Amino acid sequence: MSTTISREIRLKSRPEGLPRPENFELASVELPEPGPGEVLVRNRWMSVDPYMRGRMMDRKSYVPPFQIGKPLEGHAVGKVVASNNPDFAPGDLVLSMNGWREAFVSNGQDLQKLDTHGLPEEAFLGVAGMPGLTAYAGLLRIGEPKAGETVFVSGAAGAVGSLVCQIAKIKGCRVVGSAGGEAKCAWLKSIGVDETINYKAHPDQRSLMAALKAATPEGVDVYFENVGGDHLVAALDAMNNFGRIPVCGMISGYNDTAPRPGPWNLFNIIGKRLRVQGFIVSDHLDLLPDFMRDLAKWVSEGKVKWQETVEEGIENAPAAFLKLFSGGNTGKMLVKLDKDA
Amino acid sequence: MSTTISREIRLKSRPEGLPRPENFELASVELPEPGPGEVLVRNRWMSVDPYMRGRMMDRKSYVPPFQIGKPLEGHAVGKVVASNNPDFAPGDLVLSMNGWREAFVSNGQDLQKLDTHGLPEEAFLGVAGMPGLTAYAGLLRIGEPKAGETVFVSGAAGAVGSLVCQIAKIKGCRVVGSAGGEAKCAWLKSIGVDETINYKAHPDQRSLMAALKAATPEGVDVYFENVGGDHLVAALDAMNNFGRIPVCGMISGYNDTAPRPGPWNLFNIIGKRLRVQGFIVSDHLDLLPDFMRDLAKWVSEGKVKWQETVEEGIENAPAAFLKLFSGGNTGKMLVKLDKDA
Repeated sequence: MSTTISREIRLKSRPEGLPRPENFELASVELPEPGPGEVLVRNRWMSVDPYMRGRMMDRKSYVPPFQIGKPLEGHAVGKVVASNNPDFAPGDLVLSMNGWREAFVSNGQDLQKLDTHGLPEEAFLGVAGMPGLTAYAGLLRIGEPKAGETVFVSGAAGAVGSLVCQIAKIKGCRVVGSAGGEAKCAWLKSIGVDETINYKAHPDQRSLMAALKAATPEGVDVYFENVGGDHLVAALDAMNNFGRIPVCGMISGYNDTAPRPGPWNLFNIIGKRLRVQGFIVSDHLDLLPDFMRDLAKWVSEGKVKWQETVEEGIENAPAAFLKLFSGGNTGKMLVKLDKDA
Repeated sequence: MSTTISREIRLKSRPEGLPRPENFELASVELPEPGPGEVLVRNRWMSVDPYMRGRMMDRKSYVPPFQIGKPLEGHAVGKVVASNNPDFAPGDLVLSMNGWREAFVSNGQDLQKLDTHGLPEEAFLGVAGMPGLTAYAGLLRIGEPKAGETVFVSGAAGAVGSLVCQIAKIKGCRVVGSAGGEAKCAWLKSIGVDETINYKAHPDQRSLMAALKAATPEGVDVYFENVGGDHLVAALDAMNNFGRIPVCGMISGYNDTAPRPGPWNLFNIIGKRLRVQGFIVSDHLDLLPDFMRDLAKWVSEGKVKWQETVEEGIENAPAAFLKLFSGGNTGKMLVKLDKDA
């Protein structure tokens, strides 16, 4: 009887501000043999996402907080290596929320068999996964862009933002994206973004406001909000009447240790009759079939491209996560857990 | 040939912060005889409204700024005293935007004949006028309250807020209203508001937040925003998932001379999937027939009541306007320009 050792990342303590390596703990567990109806899964890829920062806090929110001493959770792609469950065979690729660990035993109920339709398996943690559906639902259902309108996207070089930009282009919009650094901006241009703003070149609010105004001479009709802070101030200033602001994230504030004042120009919501609307992808799973159909078409037509930033090894997962907050990723941030993946 | 003298209030200088008496100027003008096709109107009532503060600033907005040296403008009810226009006869009551003056000559194109349907004429500056339609459109079209939901209204004892409260009750909601002072709160209770918050008893943000939480044990589904500032912070904190915030006004900030930080808890927009939507009544004039029909019914059934606070004489119009910012009005603030009205 063989045993399987799985290394996993646990939450050791709740971060104050920017998480530090000591908030995480690498541990090894010995997995039992899969029992009747159970499968053993070895993870190949795991996702790190900004929303996970919220789960590290002990507060009521739309997902329950991570527990100290327990492994973290998140999307992962794994391969079934042993199965006593008729629904799964060794070699099957599966999606689960059991990330942050190398392997696990499951009764199958938290597994989703993955048919890659010819896409790389890891795309299902990014452009073809939750980040992709987030972009699709947030832009199309909440943002409601019309051809000819101007769409401004913050965090534009991220997993969600870069797909928002490309869908907006497909829908006939002019697209302006903000990202940190000239390399990211150059990539955005290469995938069709009309105008980019390197926000790191505009460290003060007035400068960012001026840059956005200059980049959007006809104003902004849809602002896809990933960042918050000065980006929201600048967007409120540049919005056109009846503009829409789908609020996907506000990463600039996720590591705040004290309340940070919000935008001083909220009055624009009235004067310009703006709609500012938050959303969470899990409320929009009904769009999944449409999304997968459209995405497959767009990818086959070369209209959607994506990038990934990959760290290797479970021991580097915390560092990969932390890079999300310093802009260390272009496109989807992934951790490769199996060298053979 | 007789001449008519009309006293009028002009903008003498643009206010910085809270307007002061010296920002206004009382002047007399001699009106010409009405020419062919013209009518002479003597105003009986004029309205002062918070939105007028915005027009005193020299900025681009949804209504053009007032011009220095020119009379202010706003809704007024007047009576035709002489007419060379076949559409108007002496004695006709008319609505116009030519407030802040005792009389004026018009070609009739900016006049609307007023059929009071048995209501007092001055109600058409308040509950049956633009403030009334503001409440109706903002609550029903933007807020979309459902029976059994909780509606929180700030500025609840004002012209708009007090009608919002009553319409929400008619629609089967639990209604919590915030107002300044125990007398206003008592009036709100007398018109059916379930719970009131005297915000003057909660001068700090945490206290207001606690008061709202205590008053809304089942959370807030619709927050009708008239005030901004701490009220918005408290509402964001108390909102339920999928709540709506129709943004009608943010009077707490209208006299700010420097940017005032916005709410620190905007992240609730994401976590709770809130919709925060500004509106302006003039975009919703298509609802006017529905509004007038519903209001007439509700008034006849005793389900809608209103109050007015009346100052007398054009010379007191600036003081009446200023009282809006110190809570000196309960219900609609009006200036009576004709002693016989």
